Amino acid sequence: MTIEAPLAPHPDRLLPADPETRAIARELYLSVKDLPIISPHGHTDPSWFAENQPFPDPATLFIIPDHYIFRMLYSQGVPLEELGVPRIDGGWTETDTRKIWRRFAENFHLLRGTPSRMWLDYAFHEILGITERLSPTNADRIYDQIDAQLKRPEFLPRALFERFGIEAIATTENPLDDLRHHKAIKASGWSGRVMTAFRPDNVTDPEHPRFREDLPELGRITGEDVGTWQGYLAALRKRRLYFIEHGGATSTDHGHPTAHTENLPQEEAAALYGRIVSSQASAGEAERFRGQMLTEMARMSVDDGLVMQIHPGALRSQNPAVTGTFGEAKGDDWPSPTEYVRALKPLLNAYGNERDLTIILFTLDESTYAREIAPLAGHYPALRIGPAWWFHDSPEGMRRFREQVTETGGFYNTVGFNDDTRAFFSIPARHDLSRRVDCGFLARLVAEHRLERDEAFAVAKDLAYNLVKAAYRL
Amino acid sequence: MTIEAPLAPHPDRLLPADPETRAIARELYLSVKDLPIISPHGHTDPSWFAENQPFPDPATLFIIPDHYIFRMLYSQGVPLEELGVPRIDGGWTETDTRKIWRRFAENFHLLRGTPSRMWLDYAFHEILGITERLSPTNADRIYDQIDAQLKRPEFLPRALFERFGIEAIATTENPLDDLRHHKAIKASGWSGRVMTAFRPDNVTDPEHPRFREDLPELGRITGEDVGTWQGYLAALRKRRLYFIEHGGATSTDHGHPTAHTENLPQEEAAALYGRIVSSQASAGEAERFRGQMLTEMARMSVDDGLVMQIHPGALRSQNPAVTGTFGEAKGDDWPSPTEYVRALKPLLNAYGNERDLTIILFTLDESTYAREIAPLAGHYPALRIGPAWWFHDSPEGMRRFREQVTETGGFYNTVGFNDDTRAFFSIPARHDLSRRVDCGFLARLVAEHRLERDEAFAVAKDLAYNLVKAAYRL
Amino acid sequence: MTIEAPLAPHPDRLLPADPETRAIARELYLSVKDLPIISPHGHTDPSWFAENQPFPDPATLFIIPDHYIFRMLYSQGVPLEELGVPRIDGGWTETDTRKIWRRFAENFHLLRGTPSRMWLDYAFHEILGITERLSPTNADRIYDQIDAQLKRPEFLPRALFERFGIEAIATTENPLDDLRHHKAIKASGWSGRVMTAFRPDNVTDPEHPRFREDLPELGRITGEDVGTWQGYLAALRKRRLYFIEHGGATSTDHGHPTAHTENLPQEEAAALYGRIVSSQASAGEAERFRGQMLTEMARMSVDDGLVMQIHPGALRSQNPAVTGTFGEAKGDDWPSPTEYVRALKPLLNAYGNERDLTIILFTLDESTYAREIAPLAGHYPALRIGPAWWFHDSPEGMRRFREQVTETGGFYNTVGFNDDTRAFFSIPARHDLSRRVDCGFLARLVAEHRLERDEAFAVAKDLAYNLVKAAYRL
Repeated sequence: MTIEAPLAPHPDRLLPADPETRAIARELYLSVKDLPIISPHGHTDPSWFAENQPFPDPATLFIIPDHYIFRMLYSQGVPLEELGVPRIDGGWTETDTRKIWRRFAENFHLLRGTPSRMWLDYAFHEILGITERLSPTNADRIYDQIDAQLKRPEFLPRALFERFGIEAIATTENPLDDLRHHKAIKASGWSGRVMTAFRPDNVTDPEHPRFREDLPELGRITGEDVGTWQGYLAALRKRRLYFIEHGGATSTDHGHPTAHTENLPQEEAAALYGRIVSSQASAGEAERFRGQMLTEMARMSVDDGLVMQIHPGALRSQNPAVTGTFGEAKGDDWPSPTEYVRALKPLLNAYGNERDLTIILFTLDESTYAREIAPLAGHYPALRIGPAWWFHDSPEGMRRFREQVTETGGFYNTVGFNDDTRAFFSIPARHDLSRRVDCGFLARLVAEHRLERDEAFAVAKDLAYNLVKAAYRL
Repeated sequence: MTIEAPLAPHPDRLLPADPETRAIARELYLSVKDLPIISPHGHTDPSWFAENQPFPDPATLFIIPDHYIFRMLYSQGVPLEELGVPRIDGGWTETDTRKIWRRFAENFHLLRGTPSRMWLDYAFHEILGITERLSPTNADRIYDQIDAQLKRPEFLPRALFERFGIEAIATTENPLDDLRHHKAIKASGWSGRVMTAFRPDNVTDPEHPRFREDLPELGRITGEDVGTWQGYLAALRKRRLYFIEHGGATSTDHGHPTAHTENLPQEEAAALYGRIVSSQASAGEAERFRGQMLTEMARMSVDDGLVMQIHPGALRSQNPAVTGTFGEAKGDDWPSPTEYVRALKPLLNAYGNERDLTIILFTLDESTYAREIAPLAGHYPALRIGPAWWFHDSPEGMRRFREQVTETGGFYNTVGFNDDTRAFFSIPARHDLSRRVDCGFLARLVAEHRLERDEAFAVAKDLAYNLVKAAYRL
Repeated sequence: MTIEAPLAPHPDRLLPADPETRAIARELYLSVKDLPIISPHGHTDPSWFAENQPFPDPATLFIIPDHYIFRMLYSQGVPLEELGVPRIDGGWTETDTRKIWRRFAENFHLLRGTPSRMWLDYAFHEILGITERLSPTNADRIYDQIDAQLKRPEFLPRALFERFGIEAIATTENPLDDLRHHKAIKASGWSGRVMTAFRPDNVTDPEHPRFREDLPELGRITGEDVGTWQGYLAALRKRRLYFIEHGGATSTDHGHPTAHTENLPQEEAAALYGRIVSSQASAGEAERFRGQMLTEMARMSVDDGLVMQIHPGALRSQNPAVTGTFGEAKGDDWPSPTEYVRALKPLLNAYGNERDLTIILFTLDESTYAREIAPLAGHYPALRIGPAWWFHDSPEGMRRFREQVTETGGFYNTVGFNDDTRAFFSIPARHDLSRRVDCGFLARLVAEHRLERDEAFAVAKDLAYNLVKAAYRL
């Protein structure tokens, strides 16, 4: 047996190296380390918790569905087929999960310096008890170890949910979803809190690939006439209530290409909707319609209390060769420059001063943190700043977020952490990483005498627990 | 009496935590700590120094006029009325200053991590002798302590001016101002140097809310025919000379929405002015006119020697609900993406190579520091780089400024610090903060052997004192 | 003799100050310090290595051709004439190189905090054995010392090439170049590897100042009819092969104002070319043509294996007063905001998924590192990320590069370091600086337990040597 490098994530990992700062950071971290996890925005599958079946083999769990991993290997020449990513055209893809795992192990070094590496190391060591660093020579042995663990009852979804200390977790569903899994969870009597979030892009974005198909279905399930603007709005209102009642939803989520908003007179909005449903709308009108729908969603939120999340600026499924073969969201998504101050004005003029409304803004364009997002959220009562998102949900990204947002936006216009993931085993890793980076930032403020020690402890708990609970009304 | 947290700003605050770096930073800081303050750009009220009357109560001094503070509290749901911000519609606003102070104390934690907190702590402790951290339980006691201090003769404006070590301070006036306070200061025989700065936006920006009213007045007080382009320019030249002669002005200041400049042939400029005065100009023409006026101002500066400050990129008074009730500049201002290299070309083609002209560029768009501002100022003899401005006038903001500007722009194309404030008690705090951050940056260069120790001491003095004096011709 | 400050670059320079981090950084640095230099992109003159003549006097070597130096002095009011920059109009310029050197020494402090200062200190001390810091009082003595050294045989180009440990260096030539110097080097039997790179802007950019003159010449030397689209493409293909065969080229280089690409049907491209050659093309068509040519170049690279470098976003020779008197590229070049994700889509749709093609992207707009460049290169097999470029080729710039690129792009989509210079004496200084900054970054990851120590050593060698060799196919 080859002697392999040990896998032993250091207890001080991610804390600043300066000894005095690290000592403060460690104390802060220990004070929040074991707080419950609140995961208000994510993409886990509610059927896991409804059905509580074992997770699959290591490759199917960790590699095949993880776009962070397969995009990096693809960028270095590994075909997606060899990583087992399913083809929508039914063509060959690797199904031998052990081979997929070996291919991954050969390329494990590509993840050096990335958050994926830290998440995996955490999952392997802290959750699954692996003590060697993955390499080509131990790939099979580690595969077997993980595979054996995953079959044990303490690795069933509900057991892990409890072991991870999850107090509440949100999934994401579109308005047509019947929420059967959420209902099943509730009916099962299990105490885990799993709520849905209302993500209506498929019926509010005319350029969404499912819009034409899903809009009539929205009418059917609500009994509303979605041929009319009023019927369409009524249908959306009904589904929001359904999500609140049957899925425990406390939030909506909107993933638009830009932050553009509109606040048209209702007659104009109705006319625009008319062109949308009759398929006569231009790209510009589709953009205006999405913008109008953000304002309509804010209006509904004032009534029903759902917290609004706006995630603009991602260009999705941009590589036709990949999308055509493997489908949407296969690592060919990226940010684009995003403007907020002019784009949000119509919405903010209408609802920015509402004290009972919460709109959480996210960005993939870090140049907007200090220039736009923090100044806006440091003024409007309705606005809060979502955590570092997607490509920036990483140690350096989170550090830049705090450094660029805090001085104008303060800590109290932020809303804690989102893991934003379907990779269930990474959830405790991601929250742990976030707590470590935040405590490192706070420790620097304390070490530089910019924040008092007792205040840093209070803020650390706010960032890890209190703010997310308050912002998402949990 | 409740035991409160002590208020005791640490002597090493804001210096880097690494012990070797901190030791260097401390030495550098001690070498510049007591240099006189030169404040070449700010918004203090010259009547304070002319009349030398006591400052008002703590709330009226520290809360009601401070947009940094009330915007943060407003963003968290505190109505501006409860903070005593006066309503332009005459509606109710809190006038019990003790109640306003209590409301502030209840929300003091919102300022954690912001520069406002550091400025206040400095003012409370270093200037006013407060030794407890403000909290809801000691709010009244601290109110009383501050209030009592403010009534003492050593807290009169001129006494503080001297205690703060101010060598020179600039106020900002518009061209219609008669500079009576500056004249009164001069006539009083008091030795404090208070000069004005010439800020003509109200008569050079057709979209300025006072443009239509103020333009004829400019004609009246100068005896020039502002109905003509030549008369208009002559009127501006006269007021510049008036500001130099009666207000000691050495600089102008221009707060435009963008950095756009034009250098039109004079006939075209005259025709454009014709459309402006006859109110027929479009938004595009207003933008062109502002751009033309920057070049005209540069042309006049070549003649009369006034240093030109360009502050582009702020969108001001953007929240109609707030502006409508409370008026302009009530925390609803923010940056927008700003382009410089193309925008400034007409001006720079005309005057960028002038050795006797100084144009100081500011930005609210930090992405331009390394990309545009430093490269431009590292070439054109006329250009200098203004310090980190407004939202970025903070420890992290100033650090980013030095990190992103120095390598291409050098230290010697920067111009020292601007406090840019009407909050008189924050002036020594702000200069102290700036000196600490700059010394921290220099100390890192020394500790990393990127700058020799003796050179760092020379640069520290240049950044704190020599460069501002030279750049602003003081 | 005046006692001057010593010049003694510290062995730990540029390494992080924290003692633990520095100790790790030092070990990493020592492990890569003496690796051979591979310089795959630069602007040295191949005649130096062909003819092996002595370098000129200190001013002609270090000041007159260095735009980093003369732009900084010019920005502070030193006329370019006094620095000996030749005038294209034949007007007076200083020719007394000792006077030029003195003028430089008087202004040496302006370079504090800039990379030029570190490069010069290295060249003076490590290469030329100077032990005093340059100052006005020792300027003549140091001039004499350097001048004497430069006349010695061990300072001839080939001797320095070997002393610097250069394994391979690329020059840059345009397609019309006959590569006589490269042929002469080969013919001489000298073992130094000097290869050319194919930079066709003068015949692919219709707005290049030499386009109209050089296009017919391209036809003449290739015997192709460049009046037709097919003939033009054939001519380019021939010259690429000529560069490969006679100049050892492994790469092309494209310096466009934007990253815009096109992939027109060939008939449309031919028609566009027709308008270009007949001088009827608009600015928009010139932009489309440049964009089309990037895709054509990629197509040719798939065939002939040349690695493609895209350097967009520089606005060049922007100051008419300087360009008119001194010619192109006299320090009046700067970045502009640059967009990549939409701009590159046509090219990437066509060739982004090619495993055998390498396209190296550079940027002068640092806001694109984490937002666009890393996400793109972390997906497309054909894309790699070029190192921090030009204004950002500096300690802070390189640090930002690693911090912003690594987490999404990884280390293995980067391609080592480019010195990108014609300042031969700065080459070892620049590579040394890059290795130090990279090792400092890696040391921080190790100290923060984000990367294992053994992995950091492997990555350090990859960044300094292996990646550049692989990416540029050397």
